[in-house]
Amino acid sequence: MANYIYELKLKVRDYECDSQGIVNNAVYQNYLEHARHEFLAAEGINFVDLHQQGIDPVVSRIDIQYKTPLRGGDEFICRLYLLKEGVKYTFMQDIFRASDEAVSVKARVETVCLVNGRLSRGEHFDPIFSKYL
Amino acid sequence: MANYIYELKLKVRDYECDSQGIVNNAVYQNYLEHARHEFLAAEGINFVDLHQQGIDPVVSRIDIQYKTPLRGGDEFICRLYLLKEGVKYTFMQDIFRASDEAVSVKARVETVCLVNGRLSRGEHFDPIFSKYL
Amino acid sequence: MANYIYELKLKVRDYECDSQGIVNNAVYQNYLEHARHEFLAAEGINFVDLHQQGIDPVVSRIDIQYKTPLRGGDEFICRLYLLKEGVKYTFMQDIFRASDEAVSVKARVETVCLVNGRLSRGEHFDPIFSKYL
Amino acid sequence: MANYIYELKLKVRDYECDSQGIVNNAVYQNYLEHARHEFLAAEGINFVDLHQQGIDPVVSRIDIQYKTPLRGGDEFICRLYLLKEGVKYTFMQDIFRASDEAVSVKARVETVCLVNGRLSRGEHFDPIFSKYL
Repeated sequence: MANYIYELKLKVRDYECDSQGIVNNAVYQNYLEHARHEFLAAEGINFVDLHQQGIDPVVSRIDIQYKTPLRGGDEFICRLYLLKEGVKYTFMQDIFRASDEAVSVKARVETVCLVNGRLSRGEHFDPIFSKYL
Repeated sequence: MANYIYELKLKVRDYECDSQGIVNNAVYQNYLEHARHEFLAAEGINFVDLHQQGIDPVVSRIDIQYKTPLRGGDEFICRLYLLKEGVKYTFMQDIFRASDEAVSVKARVETVCLVNGRLSRGEHFDPIFSKYL
Repeated sequence: MANYIYELKLKVRDYECDSQGIVNNAVYQNYLEHARHEFLAAEGINFVDLHQQGIDPVVSRIDIQYKTPLRGGDEFICRLYLLKEGVKYTFMQDIFRASDEAVSVKARVETVCLVNGRLSRGEHFDPIFSKYL
Repeated sequence: MANYIYELKLKVRDYECDSQGIVNNAVYQNYLEHARHEFLAAEGINFVDLHQQGIDPVVSRIDIQYKTPLRGGDEFICRLYLLKEGVKYTFMQDIFRASDEAVSVKARVETVCLVNGRLSRGEHFDPIFSKYL
């Protein structure tokens, strides 16, 4: 089992489901983003504040495998761990249905950090994330 | 019939429908906002630029009557006209299903203009909108 | 103070904010809907199950007053109570910022119940809601 | 250059942008889905009708590379072509900013077809898509 460093429990909201009666694919990206931002917040990093300082972590690539679909009212757990790959921080993020731990989504999210619009080497986050690498 | 001053034709996207198979109620508010912003753009006003100048038109109240629901693939027409009421600009906005002109939504959207976070008297927009009042 | 019968605490997710840096107006409708559905769920009513039985509660009108805007990371509390007006159930719903109880949104949400696509007199919900009226 | 078989021009709506002032990553997935559904519609396939017949094309994996971000008001073009890989139909989908043809997003979207909830070999779509393979 992966060595997750953070988890967040959430619940599907009915408006997140589409006419197939299951959570729309794009909404999982919302869940994944929210889990990353809550992880950052738990580390004392406020995403909006960063933006105002000219620091913008951005997703450069996302790879999502869809396994068990979630439905209205389902509780689920977002778990993640972190890799450093060159200038990139890669978040390995999995979503599990809470009722039975079925894997709903497996995602690999590559991020880079822009400072004043230019690619940085990620120095800003190194001191914060080093304990997880 | 109302004296509409602007109209915008759009098409329902499937992801905008919820598990009832119809457009989710909140999404009509997206449509109404987009129609207002496109109207502003047609008048030469860029919403994002305004924000960067410290000028933020904000909705203070919205009243939406839901009539005929829209479904995936439906084309629809957003029409609007404008009233000035004290410091408020009120957008009267109706949405019609294109196939038969059935009324889908009737909305009254009251807006005020904040300048550097403080309520203004709307002077910024008076010269632009006076021809419609 | 209103006699609220249900409350739900939630937290703003960053993707719910728009380029003004505050929660987009339409998103409050998502919050209001989710609070109603969670209230129904607490009463043993599953919204998706209802739809499969041909019972569709729908919003016929919504009136939202926007007061204090919420920002990324803000916690907030959705509170509601219920009125019966003819065939309509009207939800009176207010949203408060958790940090200081500032009123963020005041909403009046009129709903009717369709059974197999036709307006019903709401009999389905009367036994469930009568204790709150 | 790829041999695209379908394209769809759209325009960014301001509510699709987040507090970084650019289109939120998840929204591109909405664009990609809408482009696929419009492509299907152009082939005479209605997504909602399919669902009612028990036929559900679902995304099994998506890989999105984010290049140039789109901003409020930007026009963009979604282009796609199709591969058949075993039981999967894979959509190769790229999004270009209309003003300068800058690549905004490059995506690979693997789909499978469920019939009454069970994986099918995609026979349903073979006659329709064979001309593109």
